Amino acid sequence: MSDELGALRAKLATEIPVTLHLGLEVIGHDAGGLTLAAPLSKNVNHQGTAFAGSVNAVATLAGWGWVWLTLRRSGLEGQVVLQDSTIQYLRPIETDFTATCLPAEDAEVERLLAGMTRRRRGRVTLRVEIRSRATLVATFRGRYVALVAASAD
Amino acid sequence: MSDELGALRAKLATEIPVTLHLGLEVIGHDAGGLTLAAPLSKNVNHQGTAFAGSVNAVATLAGWGWVWLTLRRSGLEGQVVLQDSTIQYLRPIETDFTATCLPAEDAEVERLLAGMTRRRRGRVTLRVEIRSRATLVATFRGRYVALVAASAD
Repeated sequence: MSDELGALRAKLATEIPVTLHLGLEVIGHDAGGLTLAAPLSKNVNHQGTAFAGSVNAVATLAGWGWVWLTLRRSGLEGQVVLQDSTIQYLRPIETDFTATCLPAEDAEVERLLAGMTRRRRGRVTLRVEIRSRATLVATFRGRYVALVAASAD
Repeated sequence: MSDELGALRAKLATEIPVTLHLGLEVIGHDAGGLTLAAPLSKNVNHQGTAFAGSVNAVATLAGWGWVWLTLRRSGLEGQVVLQDSTIQYLRPIETDFTATCLPAEDAEVERLLAGMTRRRRGRVTLRVEIRSRATLVATFRGRYVALVAASAD
């Protein structure tokens, strides 16, 4: 577990440099999902609350990381891209915040992996919950596409 | 025109610091809408294309800036917040990119301003087009809420 989270941390830090400016942290990955966190200080807006664009970015990465880890656990390697997403900002975020990508249901994971192995392309829709302390402050839904890489990556 | 774009530039740079890391630029504001731009180099992802979270952030700010300028032109001052948004990523973005917030229709602008003056709160739904050179590469729709500030800001 620690190894795979370390690999995700390294992947994000080296391959999506803007994540360093978000202060992004990988917190944990368990049956409850993959949780990332970001500090308010680096993502603050004109009102002293979290900038919507930063909240969306952290949610986008939680979903992306969840797919990446799911492929990795299955010995698959591929490119993961976001096809579309929707986000609701429920209330101002006045603290550091987390984004937890909830696990897809088993049948959806099977469909994703089967797509990757049979058609070199799989899809999955994921829900991400953004919290400020215990309070749900935003919800995100993203459709991700995973593609078998043309060459080893 | 130049004065108001300068004011928007200053507002974004000083009050949403993460925009500096996006390399955000305010390009122009005319009958075609408000256009922001960002370089690929600062927003690159693991595939050498633009990170979805950065694209969403620039689109979010194009809509935000359009509302801010519209209020300012009407002598109104307020807080502008994004309530919800949806984005479709149509194709990989392999160059610097722009986000143009299309102007709302006159009736919608009137409703926004009337809400601000009568109920201290107005709403508007905006469409933002993201382009890589001339090609439409993503579309964004956001619902913004403008609130009369409790005190001068």
